[in-house]
Amino acid sequence: MEDVMVKGERRPITTIVFVFAMQKEAQPLINRLLLVKEVNSPFPKEVTWVLFNGKYKDLNINIVCPGKDSTLGVESVGTVPASLVTFASILALQPDLIISAGTAGGFKAKGASIGDVYIVSTVAFHDRRIPVPVLDLYGVGMRNAFPTPNLIKELNLKVGRLSTGDSMDMSPHDKESIIANDATVKDMEGAAVAYVADIFKVPTILLKGVTDIVDGNRPTSEEFLENLAAVTAKLDESVTKVIDFISGKCLSDL
Amino acid sequence: MEDVMVKGERRPITTIVFVFAMQKEAQPLINRLLLVKEVNSPFPKEVTWVLFNGKYKDLNINIVCPGKDSTLGVESVGTVPASLVTFASILALQPDLIISAGTAGGFKAKGASIGDVYIVSTVAFHDRRIPVPVLDLYGVGMRNAFPTPNLIKELNLKVGRLSTGDSMDMSPHDKESIIANDATVKDMEGAAVAYVADIFKVPTILLKGVTDIVDGNRPTSEEFLENLAAVTAKLDESVTKVIDFISGKCLSDL
Repeated sequence: MEDVMVKGERRPITTIVFVFAMQKEAQPLINRLLLVKEVNSPFPKEVTWVLFNGKYKDLNINIVCPGKDSTLGVESVGTVPASLVTFASILALQPDLIISAGTAGGFKAKGASIGDVYIVSTVAFHDRRIPVPVLDLYGVGMRNAFPTPNLIKELNLKVGRLSTGDSMDMSPHDKESIIANDATVKDMEGAAVAYVADIFKVPTILLKGVTDIVDGNRPTSEEFLENLAAVTAKLDESVTKVIDFISGKCLSDL
Repeated sequence: MEDVMVKGERRPITTIVFVFAMQKEAQPLINRLLLVKEVNSPFPKEVTWVLFNGKYKDLNINIVCPGKDSTLGVESVGTVPASLVTFASILALQPDLIISAGTAGGFKAKGASIGDVYIVSTVAFHDRRIPVPVLDLYGVGMRNAFPTPNLIKELNLKVGRLSTGDSMDMSPHDKESIIANDATVKDMEGAAVAYVADIFKVPTILLKGVTDIVDGNRPTSEEFLENLAAVTAKLDESVTKVIDFISGKCLSDL
């Protein structure tokens, strides 16, 4: 990340791209910031990806979501669509900062409660087991989020590690890897967004609102659907505070 | 696939993009077809992706590989890099046909032996479990490969279903999903390549050489490394026959 710091540290942050997995998670923020859907999308005409943008204070705010699967009509969650929209957004929008925001499962054993909003310290994958030397590390794909000590202090945010996988449930093998990743929160996109952003050396932060307790006694999908609206509103509050903090600052101020 | 047939059926196939996960798997074909590494890559300068191309008979042959991870130096296997290179290759090269080629694990219970080369009938994911109605189907992401009845008959190819996941081993949960997918071969990229190609309605075929027996008694990684060179040579033979068959034909002739 040192190269990034050198290049970016003395220039105010101008353009932010938020990557959300589901438009539902982004909607409160879209409404609050009065963002509008871009009709001249910079993306290929064949994709379902949606882009909302607008000016907030001195910032160009962009929100991208993979959109609904064209055959099945459900949100295109998971690492593959998230990596594609991140890739195309970096090329088209040249952001100073990527923010992967959305909902996540939390581990109560690591202090998480429903409604908590975490800022992520490191990301890793928990469902890419490749038992060959070095490829094993590649599979885990652990990387640091962009360091934001001032933001964390000022906003009094909870900090935790994120583990990403393409399943909403947690198999015993996933659990083992999540523990090895020392994760407090678990999502389905974060490490993929960070992987792509890292290729382009775009600083990335991740904000995750806890909709369900993974090590609790209720099924994830049930708790997730029940808490989605309330947690999305809490996430929106935190994201707005983060944007207000970023406004007028350089990367090195974060 | 009907739209694709209507558009493409009467025009000879001109441009093919092969997506390989590892350059090692592609090397015999690169050598045989005298393909050269493209120095003016159509990809962003930040990526490690490699493109080899050249003319073979009437065909523009392109081979793309995600290349070596810039930090760890190992091949960038798995669904995320495969989906990114497929996306960028479709936009840059506008292929008439995508061929996902490479090595795979095979199930002896379904008739697979080491060295077999399969042409794939359908693809699906086995590590994207999302227990929410419709999202469950999205996670599995089952789709048909482009139908090639004449190619299969002429070349006497073995046909089987492919299941894709980001792990080289097979957990009990993966096994359950692979059985549900009725898969004969298992790889780490195919369903992701097919997903991206399907967005753009680019016909996709998949050719997989079996390096290891998943339901055998030896560790996959050990067998895989042991058989990689020999199976890659067999795959090259089959791929060459496929290219020779395709040459001068339209999609509807396949």
